[in-house]
Amino acid sequence: MAGNTFGNVFRLTTWGESHGPAVGGVLDGMPAGTALNLSAVDAELARRKPRGAAGTPRRETDAVEWLSGLHPEPDAHGRRISLGTPIAFLIRNENTQSADYAALGEVFRPGHADATYQAKYGLRDVRGGGRSSARETAARVVAGALAKQLLGPSVTVRSAVARAAGIAASDPSTWNWALRDQSEVGCPDLEASKAIVDEVARRRQAGDSAGGIVYLEILGVPPGLGEPVFDKLHAVLGHALLSINAVKGVEFGDGFAGSDLSGSEHNDAPDADGSIRQNREGGITGGLSNGRPITARIAFKPVSSIASLQNALDADGQVHKIEIQGRHDALVVPRALPIVEAMAALTVADAMLQQRMQKHA
Amino acid sequence: MAGNTFGNVFRLTTWGESHGPAVGGVLDGMPAGTALNLSAVDAELARRKPRGAAGTPRRETDAVEWLSGLHPEPDAHGRRISLGTPIAFLIRNENTQSADYAALGEVFRPGHADATYQAKYGLRDVRGGGRSSARETAARVVAGALAKQLLGPSVTVRSAVARAAGIAASDPSTWNWALRDQSEVGCPDLEASKAIVDEVARRRQAGDSAGGIVYLEILGVPPGLGEPVFDKLHAVLGHALLSINAVKGVEFGDGFAGSDLSGSEHNDAPDADGSIRQNREGGITGGLSNGRPITARIAFKPVSSIASLQNALDADGQVHKIEIQGRHDALVVPRALPIVEAMAALTVADAMLQQRMQKHA
Amino acid sequence: MAGNTFGNVFRLTTWGESHGPAVGGVLDGMPAGTALNLSAVDAELARRKPRGAAGTPRRETDAVEWLSGLHPEPDAHGRRISLGTPIAFLIRNENTQSADYAALGEVFRPGHADATYQAKYGLRDVRGGGRSSARETAARVVAGALAKQLLGPSVTVRSAVARAAGIAASDPSTWNWALRDQSEVGCPDLEASKAIVDEVARRRQAGDSAGGIVYLEILGVPPGLGEPVFDKLHAVLGHALLSINAVKGVEFGDGFAGSDLSGSEHNDAPDADGSIRQNREGGITGGLSNGRPITARIAFKPVSSIASLQNALDADGQVHKIEIQGRHDALVVPRALPIVEAMAALTVADAMLQQRMQKHA
Amino acid sequence: MAGNTFGNVFRLTTWGESHGPAVGGVLDGMPAGTALNLSAVDAELARRKPRGAAGTPRRETDAVEWLSGLHPEPDAHGRRISLGTPIAFLIRNENTQSADYAALGEVFRPGHADATYQAKYGLRDVRGGGRSSARETAARVVAGALAKQLLGPSVTVRSAVARAAGIAASDPSTWNWALRDQSEVGCPDLEASKAIVDEVARRRQAGDSAGGIVYLEILGVPPGLGEPVFDKLHAVLGHALLSINAVKGVEFGDGFAGSDLSGSEHNDAPDADGSIRQNREGGITGGLSNGRPITARIAFKPVSSIASLQNALDADGQVHKIEIQGRHDALVVPRALPIVEAMAALTVADAMLQQRMQKHA
Repeated sequence: MAGNTFGNVFRLTTWGESHGPAVGGVLDGMPAGTALNLSAVDAELARRKPRGAAGTPRRETDAVEWLSGLHPEPDAHGRRISLGTPIAFLIRNENTQSADYAALGEVFRPGHADATYQAKYGLRDVRGGGRSSARETAARVVAGALAKQLLGPSVTVRSAVARAAGIAASDPSTWNWALRDQSEVGCPDLEASKAIVDEVARRRQAGDSAGGIVYLEILGVPPGLGEPVFDKLHAVLGHALLSINAVKGVEFGDGFAGSDLSGSEHNDAPDADGSIRQNREGGITGGLSNGRPITARIAFKPVSSIASLQNALDADGQVHKIEIQGRHDALVVPRALPIVEAMAALTVADAMLQQRMQKHA
Repeated sequence: MAGNTFGNVFRLTTWGESHGPAVGGVLDGMPAGTALNLSAVDAELARRKPRGAAGTPRRETDAVEWLSGLHPEPDAHGRRISLGTPIAFLIRNENTQSADYAALGEVFRPGHADATYQAKYGLRDVRGGGRSSARETAARVVAGALAKQLLGPSVTVRSAVARAAGIAASDPSTWNWALRDQSEVGCPDLEASKAIVDEVARRRQAGDSAGGIVYLEILGVPPGLGEPVFDKLHAVLGHALLSINAVKGVEFGDGFAGSDLSGSEHNDAPDADGSIRQNREGGITGGLSNGRPITARIAFKPVSSIASLQNALDADGQVHKIEIQGRHDALVVPRALPIVEAMAALTVADAMLQQRMQKHA
Repeated sequence: MAGNTFGNVFRLTTWGESHGPAVGGVLDGMPAGTALNLSAVDAELARRKPRGAAGTPRRETDAVEWLSGLHPEPDAHGRRISLGTPIAFLIRNENTQSADYAALGEVFRPGHADATYQAKYGLRDVRGGGRSSARETAARVVAGALAKQLLGPSVTVRSAVARAAGIAASDPSTWNWALRDQSEVGCPDLEASKAIVDEVARRRQAGDSAGGIVYLEILGVPPGLGEPVFDKLHAVLGHALLSINAVKGVEFGDGFAGSDLSGSEHNDAPDADGSIRQNREGGITGGLSNGRPITARIAFKPVSSIASLQNALDADGQVHKIEIQGRHDALVVPRALPIVEAMAALTVADAMLQQRMQKHA
Repeated sequence: MAGNTFGNVFRLTTWGESHGPAVGGVLDGMPAGTALNLSAVDAELARRKPRGAAGTPRRETDAVEWLSGLHPEPDAHGRRISLGTPIAFLIRNENTQSADYAALGEVFRPGHADATYQAKYGLRDVRGGGRSSARETAARVVAGALAKQLLGPSVTVRSAVARAAGIAASDPSTWNWALRDQSEVGCPDLEASKAIVDEVARRRQAGDSAGGIVYLEILGVPPGLGEPVFDKLHAVLGHALLSINAVKGVEFGDGFAGSDLSGSEHNDAPDADGSIRQNREGGITGGLSNGRPITARIAFKPVSSIASLQNALDADGQVHKIEIQGRHDALVVPRALPIVEAMAALTVADAMLQQRMQKHA
């Protein structure tokens, strides 16, 4: 129950503290015989690394060590074949500067899990936030990159920054997705991207930080995935996405805005020719995929670690003035894209495997 | 895996189709010796019943039949004592008019789970939406009413309508909660309530419907509840809330709006006297309760069943013109309040029990 | 966690106390479109009823009320089609004589769960043993009868009494299974059967009781079922069988006796023609079915409720002399056969569904 | 579902193939603040290593690398304090001679999981048996050694060889447990021990092998542990023990022999002074611990890898003559003792944590 496992039949368990020896995971339930391109995993991890002015100066190599679950002989394309047994992996923690945290040992940083971990466990590893650090999400990205390969080429999981530091990008329906990776902040609207970079730079200089909204799209999901009642596809996706550090909200399709509409506007009814062009539901009806694109928006709070002076409590309730010295991002949403996609891919892959059991053979 | 069970150590399994013999559930994990007032359950179910002009004319008695898990002898206050064994219960389905659905048998109603259930299972019970009907939530309300009693008087779980049919209520911080039940639509801002009632009546007359936003507040949750990483308290709450019929989004604390702020604004730092007055986090930091009120907003799409003419597909891809004749609400959010609270209470009770295992004895 | 659910993707949850209103269950995960003959369920329940001199005089009607999960229209053969949603059912408790237990309320019956339930929960329902009564197994038999139908005609799950009251039947390989139901005690060796009946009658007259050993055979299981490591097929089967009231041991294939053999004797190696005639493994190698018959023996302790005088403790540690007056079997193994088969069928069906996810599509 | 996780709230997930880079595990649910002596883990692993004439010549260093879940600072006694987060660890595979298996690649060794893995997954790692090798149990021993420390000094988990190669030791009630580790084969009856050693040597010389029976005893378990119905304490223990490689049977208390007795003999009734001296139930009544010693016997089949000539099938159904050349034990039960104890300790620790949630606070 201890909350370190995600998924029903396709299950990821992660482990590791930010400044411990390593972080890693065990992915159980990968069907035997899946050909896995491990360099595609490295590419996903590279997307998670800090980039440009917005990122933390902490540099992690993030070399994945594969420990189990793969046939020793690669196939003709250099891919490793899954054995059906658990795929375990780890990434060593490097370049940790635990001394940065020494001064903070007794103080609870606002916005961080320090006070709450202390309340939960009665003790904690203060170095780099320990288990509560987003360092853990590297393991999610590894597993998500494998999940994407299980989903195969017919399914596309992609995300981009739709809003950051208060600056909105254009509507995703107008995006040229190819431009996303030209943006330093993962935003396909390059004009908005530039404005975001500037505003984040301004905030960073002021010792402050920013949050944002990620747009997620999953194309090619066949209809009928998800489990009725408690494990509706968007409920499990919501669980997955809300479990990412700093996420405070999630909505599907028209989401909050859609609640103002009338039923006749919101219902994705067919046109006279039988095609359904509207997608206010965001690809999920009654909790099950309906075959149209699954769309979601995910809200990230601004980064809690800021360089300017803040009040903070210690365990005795005394107030201290602190300035957080560690190496931190001023905006995390660009680095969050592969994490968002990883959680989405894990969720859809799990649903896809469960769907194999729904009908009488 | 079939998605009809919610919770880890405090677990609700529900069953039942809308027009089958009954709906019901099994609540497993209620600690032995909990004194349960069963008439409080009836009171919660009464809140779920259709009321006023906005509600469906279908009238359900909703008498709970208790089947197991309770000591045969009531205590001095008429309460039943839990045995520690599963508490099973059922509610008979009455006043069903399945004939209303006969004409719809072959057509997939827009916004409903008809087409998606057909895709998932290859067949379905068309009467009243079968398992996909919100009738199932009666079982959640029963279990939630027991969960509230397990939480006890130190925890308050309450919700109200914050917005409906495009009309916003005042900020929840200004509400007099006692007024909520004077509102026909569960909105403590009685002026907004009146406007909502009028707008919903107008839409209903036009053969249309409305959606809305529910505000949820959980007071008195001790710090440290929730499980780090995948089962963060708000991730599990989000899962719980998104699993309610018609919910398309959920946010905690400042949620989507908070993503525009800077870290210095968003961090709930203490004042000089050590008290923390701000609650932009919505009572959850790093995925664990922080001792302040847990706050959330839940977006419900407009009711899909509308009396006006719509296009609809059948299984062969042919387009039909349909007018939904059944008895339906034009606005469901007022009836959703006890369901929202039930899911919240189930989640917090589960987290509370899990917390008993977190520290070395 | 509260232990009232069995299975991973094909899951039975049971509920109910012996003298409460009813016992019942929820079977989740039955693939949609499975045609179910409900009168076959009644037939299995009839096998569980007390028969002949060995049985309790308590007579239960055991009429199953089907509550959900079945399409309302039967098929041409009168079978009900599963919807893919949870199948809930209940059986009313009748003919309960709770007064029999009034005198026992404060005393812990030797061999029963009275003292241990009291230790676990701090209270209990003393009437008929409450939740600990074998009455609960009626729900298992219902679900097992459905599981057998999911397995279909290619799989046979059958069991018989191999030993009782110290009297051994002939080797199962020599049995004519058709004779089993001619035996009052479910033993195909009719000579042994007669001796068992006599010895049980003798013990009953002496106010005493008997135990026995059930032989279980599962034919037609395809190779590869089961999950390596912790959920080996025989480990899960063992869990299933040991969870039946009064079971104290289980062995597969040659079991305990096989541990004396040498590897060359025990290995089920092929003959020169490639056929494998020996089955010391009992159909499971390395935790996975090997395609040969799965065989097991299950040990039941003698019935604890005896009419002769025994010492018994109360909650204060005082010793009382008791004579158990209720209506009880002097031998339960014949009635246990459908329960053993039910647990076996549930286990194999669960493994069969899980196997659908093991290979890349 | 993929069967690599054991436990409900105290959960071990293992991973790793015999000749892959490493084997390891993740133990989730260790309460925060538990002081853990890591050298006690090494001591348990040392008990699992091959010893004497009966053991395989493969020598493994078995150095545990601790990856997460432990506070960086040891306490005054050199113990590491658990953080409440998952404890991950690995052991490198060394001294693997995969070439031994090259010749076997296409042949299914009798008694091994070769054919069944092939049937399940469609492919396998043939080197050293891959995932099906008992190498995996090293991870169980690590986790079990931590579980023993969580149970604390009031609980004793111990096991010894009660029978091997057809030679029975004296009754466990007569044992001097201190002698067990003087026996080369883990048998406190040193006379029997000598006879076993001789008989195993004889079989090994003949290119053959032996099996045996392990006696397990758990002292100090408080009454009330276990979950009624499906997760009875002995059902879960049985699951745990049957999941160990080569185990074919398990019995509790008097087990199979007890089924011959009458109820008046088998019931563990109190004496006139209120003390219960008999323990035919083996410490578990009605599925819950009763406070007396938990006793079990576990049957291990003879080692399947034998040096003498056997028939074996290949994937095409052709018969081959094989002689297994690898380095193998002729008797595994002595090395199985720490594994048996590990599974028992994991089970009891899980039950103990679950018991914290059973009563109203």
